Amino acid sequence: MTTASTLPAGAPALPADTKAIAEIVGGMAFDANGLVAAIAQQVESGEVLMLAWMNREAVETTLRTGYAHYYSRSRQKQWKKGESSGQVQKLVDFRLDCDGDAVLMLVEQTGVACHTGRHNCFFRAPRALGGLTEIAKVEVDPRKLYGG
Amino acid sequence: MTTASTLPAGAPALPADTKAIAEIVGGMAFDANGLVAAIAQQVESGEVLMLAWMNREAVETTLRTGYAHYYSRSRQKQWKKGESSGQVQKLVDFRLDCDGDAVLMLVEQTGVACHTGRHNCFFRAPRALGGLTEIAKVEVDPRKLYGG
Repeated sequence: MTTASTLPAGAPALPADTKAIAEIVGGMAFDANGLVAAIAQQVESGEVLMLAWMNREAVETTLRTGYAHYYSRSRQKQWKKGESSGQVQKLVDFRLDCDGDAVLMLVEQTGVACHTGRHNCFFRAPRALGGLTEIAKVEVDPRKLYGG
Repeated sequence: MTTASTLPAGAPALPADTKAIAEIVGGMAFDANGLVAAIAQQVESGEVLMLAWMNREAVETTLRTGYAHYYSRSRQKQWKKGESSGQVQKLVDFRLDCDGDAVLMLVEQTGVACHTGRHNCFFRAPRALGGLTEIAKVEVDPRKLYGG
């Protein structure tokens, strides 16, 4: 079985060339807003870091540059992960799901993925006391990440 | 560091009780269509199995029953993963992200997660030949999964 945290045989061709990028993007099913959901997963540990959104431009830029780019629905523009904080994601593999509307990126995360300073964004979970408990600690002060 | 494939200290309280479920759902940010994105990850291997959607009802049913339920945008109703195929997902942990609009479920997957018969849905990736290559094999004939 191929686990998420191991790369299968065959060298990934990333960054990809223009022709490959056009073929990949052409096979994707963007939603009514022109977006797909994108998961970033740490390549070695298998840790799911975050979920964000990509438009066509963000997919193209990610595949061309080899660094994860997303689309901000609030700012309505493409952004490079880590452009402010330095916490970039180097792309190791780019996988499309069966429906073509979800992407799994295996990445090498520099520093922490979450804007709260935690290593990943999924740090709230139900525990014995009911409701949600924070299960991961802040590793980097967010004010240091964004100069706030 | 807490990796995605290990459970942190503190026993998960799943299935959750009514009060805990109300607290969890009350803190979630459903989009204009009443949905959040939900990732299913195999608890032991860290393999990302699939991405689908949950509405409020699907979250409540998942937390109440301890089995993953999603919302089908095409059929416009809740569905239990594996209800036709038997390939159910037993919930081990339920994690909410920093924005409250994405869920990470750690699950024990029975059989295969993908309707194509592959173990996970993210089986297409760019390889040396350009475009997308199928990187995982079909493990179960889909006709056997769905009686088609």
